[in-house]
Amino acid sequence: MAGNSYGTLFRLTTFGESHGDALGGIIDGCPAGISLDFEAIRKEMQRRKPGQSSIVSQRKEDDEVQFLSGIFEGRTTGTPIGFLIPNTNQKSDDYSHIKDTYRPSHADYVYEKKYGLRDYRGGGRSSARETACRVVAGAVARQILPDIKINAFVSSVGEIFIDKPYQALDFSLTESNAVRCPDAATAQKMEDYIKEIRKQGDTVGGTVTCVIQNVPIGLGEPVFDKLHAELGKAMLSINAVKGFEFGSGFCGARMKGSEHNDSFNEDGTTKTNLSGGIQGGISNGMDIYFRVAFKPVATLLQKQEVLTNQNTLIEQQGKGRHDPCVVPRAVPIVEAMAALVLADFYLINKIYQNH
Amino acid sequence: MAGNSYGTLFRLTTFGESHGDALGGIIDGCPAGISLDFEAIRKEMQRRKPGQSSIVSQRKEDDEVQFLSGIFEGRTTGTPIGFLIPNTNQKSDDYSHIKDTYRPSHADYVYEKKYGLRDYRGGGRSSARETACRVVAGAVARQILPDIKINAFVSSVGEIFIDKPYQALDFSLTESNAVRCPDAATAQKMEDYIKEIRKQGDTVGGTVTCVIQNVPIGLGEPVFDKLHAELGKAMLSINAVKGFEFGSGFCGARMKGSEHNDSFNEDGTTKTNLSGGIQGGISNGMDIYFRVAFKPVATLLQKQEVLTNQNTLIEQQGKGRHDPCVVPRAVPIVEAMAALVLADFYLINKIYQNH
Amino acid sequence: MAGNSYGTLFRLTTFGESHGDALGGIIDGCPAGISLDFEAIRKEMQRRKPGQSSIVSQRKEDDEVQFLSGIFEGRTTGTPIGFLIPNTNQKSDDYSHIKDTYRPSHADYVYEKKYGLRDYRGGGRSSARETACRVVAGAVARQILPDIKINAFVSSVGEIFIDKPYQALDFSLTESNAVRCPDAATAQKMEDYIKEIRKQGDTVGGTVTCVIQNVPIGLGEPVFDKLHAELGKAMLSINAVKGFEFGSGFCGARMKGSEHNDSFNEDGTTKTNLSGGIQGGISNGMDIYFRVAFKPVATLLQKQEVLTNQNTLIEQQGKGRHDPCVVPRAVPIVEAMAALVLADFYLINKIYQNH
Amino acid sequence: MAGNSYGTLFRLTTFGESHGDALGGIIDGCPAGISLDFEAIRKEMQRRKPGQSSIVSQRKEDDEVQFLSGIFEGRTTGTPIGFLIPNTNQKSDDYSHIKDTYRPSHADYVYEKKYGLRDYRGGGRSSARETACRVVAGAVARQILPDIKINAFVSSVGEIFIDKPYQALDFSLTESNAVRCPDAATAQKMEDYIKEIRKQGDTVGGTVTCVIQNVPIGLGEPVFDKLHAELGKAMLSINAVKGFEFGSGFCGARMKGSEHNDSFNEDGTTKTNLSGGIQGGISNGMDIYFRVAFKPVATLLQKQEVLTNQNTLIEQQGKGRHDPCVVPRAVPIVEAMAALVLADFYLINKIYQNH
Repeated sequence: MAGNSYGTLFRLTTFGESHGDALGGIIDGCPAGISLDFEAIRKEMQRRKPGQSSIVSQRKEDDEVQFLSGIFEGRTTGTPIGFLIPNTNQKSDDYSHIKDTYRPSHADYVYEKKYGLRDYRGGGRSSARETACRVVAGAVARQILPDIKINAFVSSVGEIFIDKPYQALDFSLTESNAVRCPDAATAQKMEDYIKEIRKQGDTVGGTVTCVIQNVPIGLGEPVFDKLHAELGKAMLSINAVKGFEFGSGFCGARMKGSEHNDSFNEDGTTKTNLSGGIQGGISNGMDIYFRVAFKPVATLLQKQEVLTNQNTLIEQQGKGRHDPCVVPRAVPIVEAMAALVLADFYLINKIYQNH
Repeated sequence: MAGNSYGTLFRLTTFGESHGDALGGIIDGCPAGISLDFEAIRKEMQRRKPGQSSIVSQRKEDDEVQFLSGIFEGRTTGTPIGFLIPNTNQKSDDYSHIKDTYRPSHADYVYEKKYGLRDYRGGGRSSARETACRVVAGAVARQILPDIKINAFVSSVGEIFIDKPYQALDFSLTESNAVRCPDAATAQKMEDYIKEIRKQGDTVGGTVTCVIQNVPIGLGEPVFDKLHAELGKAMLSINAVKGFEFGSGFCGARMKGSEHNDSFNEDGTTKTNLSGGIQGGISNGMDIYFRVAFKPVATLLQKQEVLTNQNTLIEQQGKGRHDPCVVPRAVPIVEAMAALVLADFYLINKIYQNH
Repeated sequence: MAGNSYGTLFRLTTFGESHGDALGGIIDGCPAGISLDFEAIRKEMQRRKPGQSSIVSQRKEDDEVQFLSGIFEGRTTGTPIGFLIPNTNQKSDDYSHIKDTYRPSHADYVYEKKYGLRDYRGGGRSSARETACRVVAGAVARQILPDIKINAFVSSVGEIFIDKPYQALDFSLTESNAVRCPDAATAQKMEDYIKEIRKQGDTVGGTVTCVIQNVPIGLGEPVFDKLHAELGKAMLSINAVKGFEFGSGFCGARMKGSEHNDSFNEDGTTKTNLSGGIQGGISNGMDIYFRVAFKPVATLLQKQEVLTNQNTLIEQQGKGRHDPCVVPRAVPIVEAMAALVLADFYLINKIYQNH
Repeated sequence: MAGNSYGTLFRLTTFGESHGDALGGIIDGCPAGISLDFEAIRKEMQRRKPGQSSIVSQRKEDDEVQFLSGIFEGRTTGTPIGFLIPNTNQKSDDYSHIKDTYRPSHADYVYEKKYGLRDYRGGGRSSARETACRVVAGAVARQILPDIKINAFVSSVGEIFIDKPYQALDFSLTESNAVRCPDAATAQKMEDYIKEIRKQGDTVGGTVTCVIQNVPIGLGEPVFDKLHAELGKAMLSINAVKGFEFGSGFCGARMKGSEHNDSFNEDGTTKTNLSGGIQGGISNGMDIYFRVAFKPVATLLQKQEVLTNQNTLIEQQGKGRHDPCVVPRAVPIVEAMAALVLADFYLINKIYQNH
């Protein structure tokens, strides 16, 4: 109810501020008997953490996850999986200058108005550091979805777009560059642009595209809990996200029905896939694909006007170790949230799909 | 869990197939003591129902809602509000031809695969007729949100867009034309285009923009239940929706932080509003605005290939009384879902906002 | 949240006041493909309704249930099952005398204090008439639990108790007398006593015992959602219930561990069953049995002091058609609630039991 | 869904096995701005922990709770409160003998059957050690309920009962003896009896009575979420509980309505209180009181037959440091669960009570 849980059957609840002792979470509802691949979890954490390359934040976060329960002799026991990510590198003094001020386009102001106080050290609960817990849970969720492939990648940075359909891309190349764009030429342009933006002390937005393959038919519940509605909510819950579209998306709104309908093949697959793998909220076995829009990071290394809690405006020089462009690091987060959504529907479907 | 409820505190649960005896729902969690304006509810139902003009479906649905409980002497009692919308105009024979076939880009195929059977009369549960219950509940929800103004309108049909910011529009004109576009010149173009499309037996998509004004600061819960994430889910749960963006949306992903940040005024309002009235998932008191993409209706009055349950493809002539363009009728549905989301957060905030 | 739903996967939401137009409910989460036995549902409704014999209320309630959705050609479709029970025999004038008064040990007073108003016609939402919806849903729930046998019966009325263990009873005799006590001699004593109580214009309490057999091992979730904890909540939610015990119950609190432990047989069954078929909140395959205490009905056909809404006490003569003893009619309600609890855990277990 | 959360608005989710690295939990939904009394929390933990006196288990558990988030400068921030209780004194070797065996009246057997494996070190998740997290959360919950007084005490051990109504007891004496019985003479008898039982290597059951005073009118939701139904579920979810009754309880089932009804005073209070402070599921402002039955602890320091996972029966000598009687340590757990229930309804009531 207070917003810190995701999912119903495969349910993640998280806690933690960016500058407290630790972040952590509880995964409740993970089936028993799964031999967890801890290396896979560690690898996802590495992908999310800052300081991986010159185009992302140079903060150092070790992001070592400690599993405290729910696992015995390497296998899940069916009891809740508690985990902890200690905050080993909090530098509270980085943030002391914002104690009495509200930064533009941050959550400082609304937290203080809503709760009457706020943990002003860093972003507190609204920091993107919170997404580390999502990545842990997503990496566990993927392991109960063995055959489903989830591949996200950066599809645009600022005005630089991949100009190919996803089918023309080789997802194995996504990790081959710092931007996480599987098209090498475009990746280079993006990287150059991000470096330029960084020099300006500025930031830039971008989009992440995610493709989910080998999805069984039948995932998703009709009416309010449509599969794409939950995917949309999951993506929009990630910091800095401003939009979500799946299948034909906003382009579909410009089309005619005779262009948009996906004709069947005799085996139930479809010749085209403008539907994006989902009909009436339920997966139809075709690829699911969607696109997520991220705004530019609000923290600039420039002078900006900030509001004080005395209702005056003062100029403040941004500082710290922030990302000039958030989308490369958003890639594993998008995948993690997709995995959480799928895991939940996969478990629900064990009940409702009439085999 | 099975997808037929929306909301947590102000909670709507619905039932009903397009060709059963009735649709209906239960609103649980409506506060006591509210003098309901039944005329306002009736008016919203009128806006949604087919047959209002020449550019929408000519089906006749009386859509009279009967309230069965939870209201005494005109006021809500705090007990659940049960309501019924009888299906007075079901023409099952319109649909008998689809008993053994699956129409392209409909939910027929996935329902049958998921559940092992389906109510083949019309769209069954996946019919947009289901949205009638949303409109009833949304019209009740609005009445616990007295000062908040929710105005949706058609912002594009096919390639025809309103080329003005919403601030330049007069929402009182939305109902003055059949398209529900508050810009008269654009509305005329849209109407002409829809008529042309209808003659072709074709359909066309479009977008609905929604503006919410006078929102108190503090609505929305951090992390997973961000206000815009719930708005996104609510909109994506409406039939035919393919995308959602709020504030700067997908355009924001092309921008730099120095362009995108909304500078404060001394009173806590902001000079610009690319954030779309929401920071960190919580309303900041500025206008909330978002845009919803609807694909073209899949049912065409043309010949199309359909899949039979014997795994063959046959040609079928579409017939019936369908909408050539769904967006005009989607306007009250978008508003209703927005009202449901806001009502839920408004009630939650009674607990969590520290006044 | 507002208390009108029961269950998570097999979820019943109800509405309706005793003197409104209708009661009704929605069953969401019933699996698809079940051929419903409507006669079985009707029969359970008959067992619950008043006027069946001289020892229960002589109100006439037809209690015809109308199913409005979720069923197609006799089978469940996986979509929500909406149902309606019209109130055909409301006599509001029976209750006009209580408009401005609060009856002792009724909910009149607390409803008015909580909600600021109340539907004073009869018990409104707090009337036991509400349990009709539970019986409908319970009768559906039983049909997804084919091999599990649920048998409730009256085990005491006032000071008259069955003095045999349940194993010595023949449950097929429960319906052979008006009291629903499977021991004929005790049933006769109970019936005589209830008739005497009725002549006095008084009422009397009693207990219902319920035995559930053929339960698979593994139902129930650890820690907070233990099987017996949910059974307890379900029973305590029935009007007039004051206590719940299972297995050894309150007697167990007097025993020593060496007397109480249930030794195993080699096949995993136990030699004794003081545990009542549940260990650590999870069914162990032995019979589940529990006992529910019902207080005497508060409405007396005698003079009683009532409180007015002007804070004065006045004498009022009780009238109407109330039950002198509620437990005979409570038997099918206890069974229905047990079925709802089991159905929910049965569905959950499809996910969590590691087969 | 998997049973490790309690509450809806004030929501506790827990994790942890008795012999893992740590237990812990997340409290989500605690309002912001509360200055937490950490000493009060520590004190409740002390009351629960073993080794406090000669009549309880001599295990040493430090039970130091570490708060990791949601608190800033001593006050709650409205974000989730994560906490950790390290297991500093696990002696896994105490339990190695039960790896391949199932102890009578323990959860070993059903966990293994349900999940296909179990953490055999101690009780794992089914250990009463899990209740430490409940006590932490309950101690926080009490601090949002400032005027409500919750007093539990041991009302019986075996056949030894307090023979006075609770009104004749001085709750300030509860902590004055090892049994937590506020009647000194009875406490002495109980203590002597428990020592005798311990010498026999046996255990004994008992009851805890809880009295809640200064409850505002209006807590509890009608129909399924009645206040006493939730209290019942909360109590029945505690390890070893076999029964729950409130107000007149099982005695009420023997009474006549003319004896049982609670007549009003002119101020809305009642002359008697057989209702136990709750009418129709909603608090009426009178004292709430209930009684909870605990079975004797199943672990005996005697020889018992156990089942092996090879389906043979062998004799095993119980060993370890278990409680001869669980009820003294159950007192703070009962209070904690009562506080959790009340906190949840107290928050819900902020929405639904029409002031």
